[in-house]
Amino acid sequence: MKTYLNPSQEQWPTLAQRQTVASADLNETVKSIFSDIEKNGSKAVKKYTQYFDGVTLENLKVTTAEIEKALTKVPADLKKAIQTAAGNIKRFHQSQQEIAKKIETTSGVFCWRESRAINSVGIYIPGGTAPLFSTVLMLAIPAQIAGCKNIILCSPPDKNGELNPAILYAAQLTGVTQIYKVGGIQAIAAMTLGTDEIPKADKLFGPGNQFVTAAKQYAQQLGTAIDLPAGPSELLVIADDSCDPDFVASDLLSQAEHGGDSQVILVTNSETIVAKVTSAIEQQKAVLPRQSVVEKALENSRALVFETIQKGIEFSNFYAPEHLILAVEDAENMLPFIENAGSVFLGNYSCESAGDYASGTNHTLPTNGFAKNYSGVSLDSFVKKITVQKLTSKGLQNLGPTIEIMAEAEQLTAHRNAVSVRLQKLQNGDYN
Amino acid sequence: MKTYLNPSQEQWPTLAQRQTVASADLNETVKSIFSDIEKNGSKAVKKYTQYFDGVTLENLKVTTAEIEKALTKVPADLKKAIQTAAGNIKRFHQSQQEIAKKIETTSGVFCWRESRAINSVGIYIPGGTAPLFSTVLMLAIPAQIAGCKNIILCSPPDKNGELNPAILYAAQLTGVTQIYKVGGIQAIAAMTLGTDEIPKADKLFGPGNQFVTAAKQYAQQLGTAIDLPAGPSELLVIADDSCDPDFVASDLLSQAEHGGDSQVILVTNSETIVAKVTSAIEQQKAVLPRQSVVEKALENSRALVFETIQKGIEFSNFYAPEHLILAVEDAENMLPFIENAGSVFLGNYSCESAGDYASGTNHTLPTNGFAKNYSGVSLDSFVKKITVQKLTSKGLQNLGPTIEIMAEAEQLTAHRNAVSVRLQKLQNGDYN
Repeated sequence: MKTYLNPSQEQWPTLAQRQTVASADLNETVKSIFSDIEKNGSKAVKKYTQYFDGVTLENLKVTTAEIEKALTKVPADLKKAIQTAAGNIKRFHQSQQEIAKKIETTSGVFCWRESRAINSVGIYIPGGTAPLFSTVLMLAIPAQIAGCKNIILCSPPDKNGELNPAILYAAQLTGVTQIYKVGGIQAIAAMTLGTDEIPKADKLFGPGNQFVTAAKQYAQQLGTAIDLPAGPSELLVIADDSCDPDFVASDLLSQAEHGGDSQVILVTNSETIVAKVTSAIEQQKAVLPRQSVVEKALENSRALVFETIQKGIEFSNFYAPEHLILAVEDAENMLPFIENAGSVFLGNYSCESAGDYASGTNHTLPTNGFAKNYSGVSLDSFVKKITVQKLTSKGLQNLGPTIEIMAEAEQLTAHRNAVSVRLQKLQNGDYN
Repeated sequence: MKTYLNPSQEQWPTLAQRQTVASADLNETVKSIFSDIEKNGSKAVKKYTQYFDGVTLENLKVTTAEIEKALTKVPADLKKAIQTAAGNIKRFHQSQQEIAKKIETTSGVFCWRESRAINSVGIYIPGGTAPLFSTVLMLAIPAQIAGCKNIILCSPPDKNGELNPAILYAAQLTGVTQIYKVGGIQAIAAMTLGTDEIPKADKLFGPGNQFVTAAKQYAQQLGTAIDLPAGPSELLVIADDSCDPDFVASDLLSQAEHGGDSQVILVTNSETIVAKVTSAIEQQKAVLPRQSVVEKALENSRALVFETIQKGIEFSNFYAPEHLILAVEDAENMLPFIENAGSVFLGNYSCESAGDYASGTNHTLPTNGFAKNYSGVSLDSFVKKITVQKLTSKGLQNLGPTIEIMAEAEQLTAHRNAVSVRLQKLQNGDYN
């Protein structure tokens, strides 16, 4: 972790740079798999599952029997933890429900919005060594609150053709309606196009490797909405003398273990804090199993010392971190100055892990500077908000002349006529 | 307008098809203009303005003097109409402001969301014969309510190097901070990349032709957010015996005059209504100036007669119209059945023109079936919602074990440690 003292504004763009991941151009691969699955459906999906996951499956859909068997394998304490986390996530996302507010903008003119669930949503859960059941909670719970009819989950099978029991437990707990043992580009293609076995999704959610990311981008071009642009995870901690350097070190390490491409930034007003945190990192790192990953991530990481915390916040807004910990005196009063961040953690006890798993906030957040122009996943991500208007005859009489003048000025005569025809009949007394 | 009686579900995909606009592959053109503007800034922007708009400009930025001169040219009644519409749009979008609700998900664990304006937004207003000042209102008013610092407007200059006075009037009324006389791909490129003259925008809004659409798609790939995927405008009217065929005809025509690629669909439970509406269309059409455009749009348009209005609503949900007029008995009670639509107009006096201009709802809406998975533009489009969490020491003690178990099960040891380090110190009595 390299340290920079009072970096000038000119240096900020360089200091805010993320690792550029050299991604192969996967467009041709993605297109050819989509085209094959469009033509050959399940048969093609199974072919790619055999090729990429090394397992031959007769049925892609996880059966009730499989789920029941898996449930017996999840330890009781993990089940209870998942239930606790699910409860918090549910409470927070339920609080995001919008109650239709009917506004009378002009006498007799009423406007409001109504939320409607997106009918079918597709959730992708990556495979690999760690079973990301927490992401199932983060995506399926708001989908269930929204009332999505199809909540489709795809995740790559292991060598035995199975999914991790904790993923299945989280899925059944949160109302996932269909689970398929499919991963990679073929999963995204199947949910985008729909096959004889897997239903078409209107919107796709979830993390993934560069294959999944490329496939989601292509899906978006085809008209399927996606949750967020992808990028490696990142954390920025702003710390002053009130911080505990051991806590800050543990937070930086928790972010660093996500992957070698993760980035952690320490922003502070004190060189002493940098020294203490660095030393705590060395100590704590020693016992971690993913040391090489952590070390690689720390290579891309920086400690920035500014004269004031306020200047540090300015840099943070420039950087726009996915996760932001404010380990500063009176953290909540600093919040109004935060302009760009995915999720903010206030004070010494709000570690990033809390939001990653169980506080209730969503962990699907904008990375790579996208916190400047995107929100993280929320209940809003699973609904459309339809606007509604109702004009009474009086309302149209009040507002009609305004519309007529504007339509005429935009040279849209038929738009004006739609009002004039009505006003004329009202004037004639055809209606009242 | 071709009529279909009780079309079977198998026919629905064909009946819901939009006109496929044969769009040239503009990718290479877009990329080369972006690259030129990235290298040469304003100089390149002016070169393309000369080439595409046929006008040589020394300064792209509209001056205060130009605005003041323009304001004298806008008729008083149009100014008043624009003010009335602006007032309604402001009232409705202000009602969308979210008040942070702090939720205690577990004792000592607090979660909430805070809205923050997107710093810089770019608004594109097309040129051409009709000055779309109404779109200025629809985009700049919510940007102003959100508190966006830069509200940048680009619109192509006419042959005299000027913008329409009504556009300038609407822009100054709604707090647009910078106005540039730039159109087409070069405008989108300049706002995406930023130049020596035009600031970089974090998100781009506004309609445009196929060049602008292709440029916005490319901007999105570069990380600039955009409002909505583009497509021609459309209207579906559901009408029963309670409708006035003259009103329905006037609404269908108002949509049809937008462009030859517009689509209008009449859904009803009565052949008589189709006959009456068709005859009213013929009558009303005769006096419209844009007859050839209207006739071309009507060629792509359909009347569908279903046995029940309920079946018609099912089709409408399948079609997912941008605009939906419910000209039916008890329209508001039908609303719960509407699943997919951009904006809904209830009853005989709620013509689409009202929403296009002045009722208060936004007229930037999802077309081409995107009402299934996208919302129209609203105040939300101009903000990010940042999640915030605050755990007290008690809160972490309550929730910590849950996080530890979950992190361990996902094999993320450092995530667990971030909690354990804290719980340990609390147990040791280092803090209280």
